Amino acid sequence: MINDLEFDDGEHMLAPALEAAQHLQQLKSRLARCSIPTIYVNDNFGKWRSDFRQLVEHTLEDNVRGEPVVKLLKPGDEDYFVIKTRHSGFYGTTLEILLHHLEADTLILAGMTGDICVQFTAQDAYMRRFNLIIPPDLIVCKDDETKQTALKQLRQTCKAKTPFSHEIDLDSFCE
Amino acid sequence: MINDLEFDDGEHMLAPALEAAQHLQQLKSRLARCSIPTIYVNDNFGKWRSDFRQLVEHTLEDNVRGEPVVKLLKPGDEDYFVIKTRHSGFYGTTLEILLHHLEADTLILAGMTGDICVQFTAQDAYMRRFNLIIPPDLIVCKDDETKQTALKQLRQTCKAKTPFSHEIDLDSFCE
Amino acid sequence: MINDLEFDDGEHMLAPALEAAQHLQQLKSRLARCSIPTIYVNDNFGKWRSDFRQLVEHTLEDNVRGEPVVKLLKPGDEDYFVIKTRHSGFYGTTLEILLHHLEADTLILAGMTGDICVQFTAQDAYMRRFNLIIPPDLIVCKDDETKQTALKQLRQTCKAKTPFSHEIDLDSFCE
Amino acid sequence: MINDLEFDDGEHMLAPALEAAQHLQQLKSRLARCSIPTIYVNDNFGKWRSDFRQLVEHTLEDNVRGEPVVKLLKPGDEDYFVIKTRHSGFYGTTLEILLHHLEADTLILAGMTGDICVQFTAQDAYMRRFNLIIPPDLIVCKDDETKQTALKQLRQTCKAKTPFSHEIDLDSFCE
Repeated sequence: MINDLEFDDGEHMLAPALEAAQHLQQLKSRLARCSIPTIYVNDNFGKWRSDFRQLVEHTLEDNVRGEPVVKLLKPGDEDYFVIKTRHSGFYGTTLEILLHHLEADTLILAGMTGDICVQFTAQDAYMRRFNLIIPPDLIVCKDDETKQTALKQLRQTCKAKTPFSHEIDLDSFCE
Repeated sequence: MINDLEFDDGEHMLAPALEAAQHLQQLKSRLARCSIPTIYVNDNFGKWRSDFRQLVEHTLEDNVRGEPVVKLLKPGDEDYFVIKTRHSGFYGTTLEILLHHLEADTLILAGMTGDICVQFTAQDAYMRRFNLIIPPDLIVCKDDETKQTALKQLRQTCKAKTPFSHEIDLDSFCE
Repeated sequence: MINDLEFDDGEHMLAPALEAAQHLQQLKSRLARCSIPTIYVNDNFGKWRSDFRQLVEHTLEDNVRGEPVVKLLKPGDEDYFVIKTRHSGFYGTTLEILLHHLEADTLILAGMTGDICVQFTAQDAYMRRFNLIIPPDLIVCKDDETKQTALKQLRQTCKAKTPFSHEIDLDSFCE
Repeated sequence: MINDLEFDDGEHMLAPALEAAQHLQQLKSRLARCSIPTIYVNDNFGKWRSDFRQLVEHTLEDNVRGEPVVKLLKPGDEDYFVIKTRHSGFYGTTLEILLHHLEADTLILAGMTGDICVQFTAQDAYMRRFNLIIPPDLIVCKDDETKQTALKQLRQTCKAKTPFSHEIDLDSFCE
């Protein structure tokens, strides 16, 4: 979601991204209270020399379309981040090692777009035997049909649960 | 497609698998005439101690549902094979190294099921920058809606071409 | 160790390989009594179309130099195998997935040559947080200086234990 | 080499690290004139939430032992970086994808320590078919015997060339 939205369909994506970001911000607060870590898995957008904080600064300071989304989701010092270069968060990244380090077995996925980066990442996670929760209100797609198709596939091919974010019972993950 | 089909939906899959196998057999002959290699990427079905030839023998000799499909597609000495343990042919396998060894840049994918093993493999191939051709008559899904959805996604998310197998112009790949 | 030894230094390697094979055969029997699995991690020697059983047959039936070694170590139906194409048993193979499936946390490594395939595999195992036992009498090197150097490095860089094979206390691994 | 040297042997490593850094700085200037990119492959030292620039800042601003080394090798805007979490620069990182993006086929390795991070990285590079140049004056080991052993192994197992850095003929890499 840390994205300048400065691409062709970006204008069209702003409203749904903002709505998802509001829900995600609320979930992130609930996760923090349970000491469940948040990981930002972010594309480098071909900027091979940039690190995560530079990508965040770019979206906040360069007067870009995605600024209000990033403002809601600004990473804190306690958050983790992983830079990816292709669609899946697992391909050529440290994500799997980080998840083992954190002893994670269940992932809640959020982001855009639901049928590409989220779905590719979900499938890689499922092959690595992680349980998946993918709330419809936390993923962004170009239209609702695409979103519903992606969610249906994720349920069928990755055994993903797809509750709305406020329905997730975090108590079972708190220790 | 080297599969005993001895699972719940297997009976339902036999007819479409047989039809796809007939088209695949024809394409395989055309590929052989152009010296384009065929790679069998096959699940080990949890039989960690079996090799590919034992899996083929099982499907041909143990009186299983999938026998007529395997008869059509019986591997020859000139074929390559890769054993996979999860959905994608690239996950924990030698496939990527083999494809580089063969100097491949374009893959024609076939198999079952189209929305799981084929789609997971296609997405991994796309991230690794292979061009994809995925003929509708060479993939098997549990129903046509599932197949059409998978094909649409593969075109949209992986830039896959989806011609029928007889429409593929192999001349451009012959040297 | 499943190797035809039909390479330049092969004649020179036969005697030490045979000695290591005798010790390995004894350890393998002890492991079997504790239900600790044996995995053959074998090179395909550039024979991309061969499976493991064909490689074994080749070494047993084609009148090759390595035949007496392979006779001692002939795999049984209860053994696992992984085909590798490069030096490390982890690179482009299913080994890591298999080890997680078997819930292994400690590996006893054996094979040739100690400073290449064994050392590359050991280092990859160490990065993946496996404990390592590498008995000097189970690894083969072209000369003793090379072996001692490899063992010293494996102790220093991978925290490998290097007891002789008969000194390994298997009771701690038996359940 | 971006390292605070605040570990047990760190004091002992400072002098050789400083000497290697001086040679590396000179080579880096020569590489820049040929438009050959420099990639910093750096450990995160267990600081999972830090990015590369924070690691650099820490070594420059927190009054640490490694400061003079980092001052010589301070990364510029044109440099690339890869964060690793274990010994090899290839394990769980974007390095291989970046090298393909840069169309690299030969790597000049530098760093500390020569027998661990450099050697593990070299071996992974060799398996991926990169050519290797590893100048003795650019790698740091705890003592000269360890360095000579590592260099000998890298020549023997990875076909590494080991000229001194000033002997490398960059003309053959300039376009």
